[in-house]
Amino acid sequence: MKQSSIPSARVVVSAFKSKGIKHIIISPGSRNAPLTISFTENPFFKCYSIVDERSAAFFALGMAMQQKEPVAVLCTSGSALLNYYPAVAEAFYSCIPLVVVSADRPPYKIDVGDGQTIRQDNVFNRHIGYSANLKLDVNHAINRLKRYAPSFLELSQQSIISYNTQELEKALNCAQKEQLPVHINVPFEEPLYELIDITVEEQDSLTNQVSTHDELGAIQSFQESWNNAKKKMVLVGVNHPNEIEKELIDLLAEDPSVIVFTETTSNLHHPNFFPSIDSIIFPIEKSNLSENLFKDLQPEILLTFGGLIVSKKIKAFLRQYQPKLHWHVDEVKAYDTYFSLTHHFKTKPNLFLKTVLNNQYTFSDYFEKWNTVKLNYQNKRNNYLKKVPFSDFLVFYELAKTIPKDYQVHLANSSSVRYAQLFDMDESVTVFCNRGTSGIDGSTSTAVGASVVCNTPTLLISGDLSFFYDSNALWNNYIKKDFRIIIINNSGGGIFRILPGNDDSEKFETFFETSHKLSAYHISKQYGFDYQDARDASSLVQELKEFYEPSTTPKILEIFTPRKVNNKILLAYFDFIS
Amino acid sequence: MKQSSIPSARVVVSAFKSKGIKHIIISPGSRNAPLTISFTENPFFKCYSIVDERSAAFFALGMAMQQKEPVAVLCTSGSALLNYYPAVAEAFYSCIPLVVVSADRPPYKIDVGDGQTIRQDNVFNRHIGYSANLKLDVNHAINRLKRYAPSFLELSQQSIISYNTQELEKALNCAQKEQLPVHINVPFEEPLYELIDITVEEQDSLTNQVSTHDELGAIQSFQESWNNAKKKMVLVGVNHPNEIEKELIDLLAEDPSVIVFTETTSNLHHPNFFPSIDSIIFPIEKSNLSENLFKDLQPEILLTFGGLIVSKKIKAFLRQYQPKLHWHVDEVKAYDTYFSLTHHFKTKPNLFLKTVLNNQYTFSDYFEKWNTVKLNYQNKRNNYLKKVPFSDFLVFYELAKTIPKDYQVHLANSSSVRYAQLFDMDESVTVFCNRGTSGIDGSTSTAVGASVVCNTPTLLISGDLSFFYDSNALWNNYIKKDFRIIIINNSGGGIFRILPGNDDSEKFETFFETSHKLSAYHISKQYGFDYQDARDASSLVQELKEFYEPSTTPKILEIFTPRKVNNKILLAYFDFIS
Repeated sequence: MKQSSIPSARVVVSAFKSKGIKHIIISPGSRNAPLTISFTENPFFKCYSIVDERSAAFFALGMAMQQKEPVAVLCTSGSALLNYYPAVAEAFYSCIPLVVVSADRPPYKIDVGDGQTIRQDNVFNRHIGYSANLKLDVNHAINRLKRYAPSFLELSQQSIISYNTQELEKALNCAQKEQLPVHINVPFEEPLYELIDITVEEQDSLTNQVSTHDELGAIQSFQESWNNAKKKMVLVGVNHPNEIEKELIDLLAEDPSVIVFTETTSNLHHPNFFPSIDSIIFPIEKSNLSENLFKDLQPEILLTFGGLIVSKKIKAFLRQYQPKLHWHVDEVKAYDTYFSLTHHFKTKPNLFLKTVLNNQYTFSDYFEKWNTVKLNYQNKRNNYLKKVPFSDFLVFYELAKTIPKDYQVHLANSSSVRYAQLFDMDESVTVFCNRGTSGIDGSTSTAVGASVVCNTPTLLISGDLSFFYDSNALWNNYIKKDFRIIIINNSGGGIFRILPGNDDSEKFETFFETSHKLSAYHISKQYGFDYQDARDASSLVQELKEFYEPSTTPKILEIFTPRKVNNKILLAYFDFIS
Repeated sequence: MKQSSIPSARVVVSAFKSKGIKHIIISPGSRNAPLTISFTENPFFKCYSIVDERSAAFFALGMAMQQKEPVAVLCTSGSALLNYYPAVAEAFYSCIPLVVVSADRPPYKIDVGDGQTIRQDNVFNRHIGYSANLKLDVNHAINRLKRYAPSFLELSQQSIISYNTQELEKALNCAQKEQLPVHINVPFEEPLYELIDITVEEQDSLTNQVSTHDELGAIQSFQESWNNAKKKMVLVGVNHPNEIEKELIDLLAEDPSVIVFTETTSNLHHPNFFPSIDSIIFPIEKSNLSENLFKDLQPEILLTFGGLIVSKKIKAFLRQYQPKLHWHVDEVKAYDTYFSLTHHFKTKPNLFLKTVLNNQYTFSDYFEKWNTVKLNYQNKRNNYLKKVPFSDFLVFYELAKTIPKDYQVHLANSSSVRYAQLFDMDESVTVFCNRGTSGIDGSTSTAVGASVVCNTPTLLISGDLSFFYDSNALWNNYIKKDFRIIIINNSGGGIFRILPGNDDSEKFETFFETSHKLSAYHISKQYGFDYQDARDASSLVQELKEFYEPSTTPKILEIFTPRKVNNKILLAYFDFIS
């Protein structure tokens, strides 16, 4: 097997193998050649080539999110690395183990006017689990270093390898155990392209030890509070499918003292649960009795697990009507989103529920009261849908109904993920969204990356701005023929029409809505997608029939909705159910 | 005039006005609404709307580079800001006053699970002139703050404004005086969209004081060394047109002890100067007498000014054959690129030359010797061109000849700027390139931004990868009809074929060259460009005739060159002139 002649390149590759990190997304460059060669020549690794580093990092994030395992991106020196930052921040707040590997120039070449050279070490220091700044290997470049930077020769090759091995161990452990992004910066002196043949692979330098934390003792001591509370609210953020056992879901669903609020990204279903949170909260806000109603809804215990929450209204409600106790369950992190966090259980939600829940339900009318509200708005929503014209609102209703079973669905930020909350999808559908930073910068790339490691077909639902922003997501050779994109094109940032600043002026249209007349047609042709479009309800129904059929190329369905009507229909919906 | 009700938004806008910062590139968002409104409502400012922040920042960089004055970008909170980073790093190393303004959530909302929220303060700390982290305004949001973060109310509104004003002063002074990028982070509490009417504009809060540094005394004392040295090399990096007076250029050009090495980006011309540095150096490297020849070329004094140097060969030569004295002239920065810097003159190059040069030439054969070498390779190049087939090399020769007078030319990284060194363009043509980090991530956006503030037509010459990478550069409404793009499409990263790693394997093609079959046709249609293409020498000549003609839409000319031949022809050129 051919490998780079530079020992530290081989040490990196060997560390990744020993940790079982298999997927490497490589952007082209020269400084990273020692690593590119060593990864691609080693049959253990599955390597992917993506030119735009911004897209490459979100692609890797999508894969890592699916697999809950580290996935690596590799780039050359210079500003290439900075293009990873949006995905690094998303990974940081969504707890996804994205492993960033950057090749660097030798330290004595930084800030002396060399090309493609910046200050790479610790560059993500505000949003990273660990930054491993490896030391420069010297053996293969003794003459060069003697001349320009003799001090580098004072360290023995052995001590450099040993330091680098330890740093790699720390970084990769952080990614695996804490599910955080990490950055490994690897300086290389020239020559970069020399190879050696290694027949027996060098011994793996790292050992893999994963431990799990739990707090079972502590959990049991909280059981009494749980049993005594008559108003318990469970609120589930971004959550992987099948994380919670069916039996536990049933126990939660059938306890009259418990209401469970979910979002599409919670991937948790039961007829007794409360999806579409805003459809509950908004009518209360509008009511004359809002203060009393909110006090009725105010939980004694708020139990949360999963990642970030989409609904702004539930955040505002819980911040104002704070629970006596707020328990967050997560192996690593707990955000004090409602300024009332009382305990962080460092364990898996499933384990926590298994310990706390028992068949002993607490007598209460908490569930019943809110279930009445829910049935009421659902009824009203059905009536509203009968008379609503073609719009974003109606499109999302239509889409939610028709997504085929077992699809993996990715929702772009922000309109798409917000509208999707209003309607139920089939329970077999799994739903994902980049809610760590809620950016529009990588939704498409994330979906493409996730689809690569997923056995079921993938559907991305995106607005027009998110789609154009990340159109480089389609610029790679890994798009599967069963990949589907639905673009709801409302000719701009429709979400801004809903916000209070909308005054319909030219300035509003230019600087907030950024209205445009573009379609995705040419981009679909550029990257070999089949293209369909729909401009009214009947053509939408028609196009959807074909859209999910098996095909030899991936497909885009672009749905054009009336820019100036959408916001009115959404706002009128909330008024109607109030 | 309508302005935001939030005082700190008005303080920012007023500071920008008082400093004369006029151009504001805005990306859409809600958190930045107070600033968007205040900038766009004030007729002093010229505002632009660009959705993709990565592209917006390079667009601003292009404008600032042209004007040598600060240009601002403004975005909402969250990962949006991180997309500015590639341009911030380019600005940092190219000394361009890019002013980044980010709206932020109030500090108590950071890291509590709110959407579009990251750690924005100091996020560019490795590559920024100054980070101004403004304090949260409180007056308009007292009730909210009382509830969630009462400690913020301990500071008086007056002290907040005064602090913010000082920080703004520091940041904008840094941008103007040190020509560095700066970051201003402005937290806003809701409500974000409330307006007030101000009839008399609030008094400008800042005063503008620009001082210039010079070191005339010091310069004079170096005059004796200059006069005595028989081998003086002047090497000019990225340099604005018309920075050096004609008379000083002549003095340099006619001194027999001086040779002046220029690159296309030096924007400095004289028949006695030495462009195409590699065409001089490469033959010496190849020669049996290389050590003697290099010693003959080794300067006693190396005088440098301007930004970064493209030629790797001159760097390698000067690092090995170091000058006794290396003087760098720049008002702000001096990189020790050749590890031999002896003095940094903090003044303008024109002033420096005026003081040091006199009509007293030094007797020497330094110029004459190297001029013979130059004439020799120029002869050989002409012969080589007669027999060379269609290729990147021939295309650049053809392009250099035919660019119309007075065009502004932008060269993308890296093949384009490297090939362009080999041939002379008309002296009236001005040439720019992002050589601070030499990234491919924003060449097109930079050119578009620069064209907006330039009275002459603009031509971008780009490779295919750079062009696709930054195709969002065309996604805005500011592209002038005389904007021209020439894409040399060699179906991948042709530059990697020239580097030593090329083994023509599938792995090489996938992970280094990233070969592809894409064209720019669909992207040109997406964004309303006229599209021409050429696939051989005669069609190129034909297409070029039309290409520069006035038109009602901007134009793209895509030139397809043979992927597997280009590198051979370039390498054969260097062999031929040796």
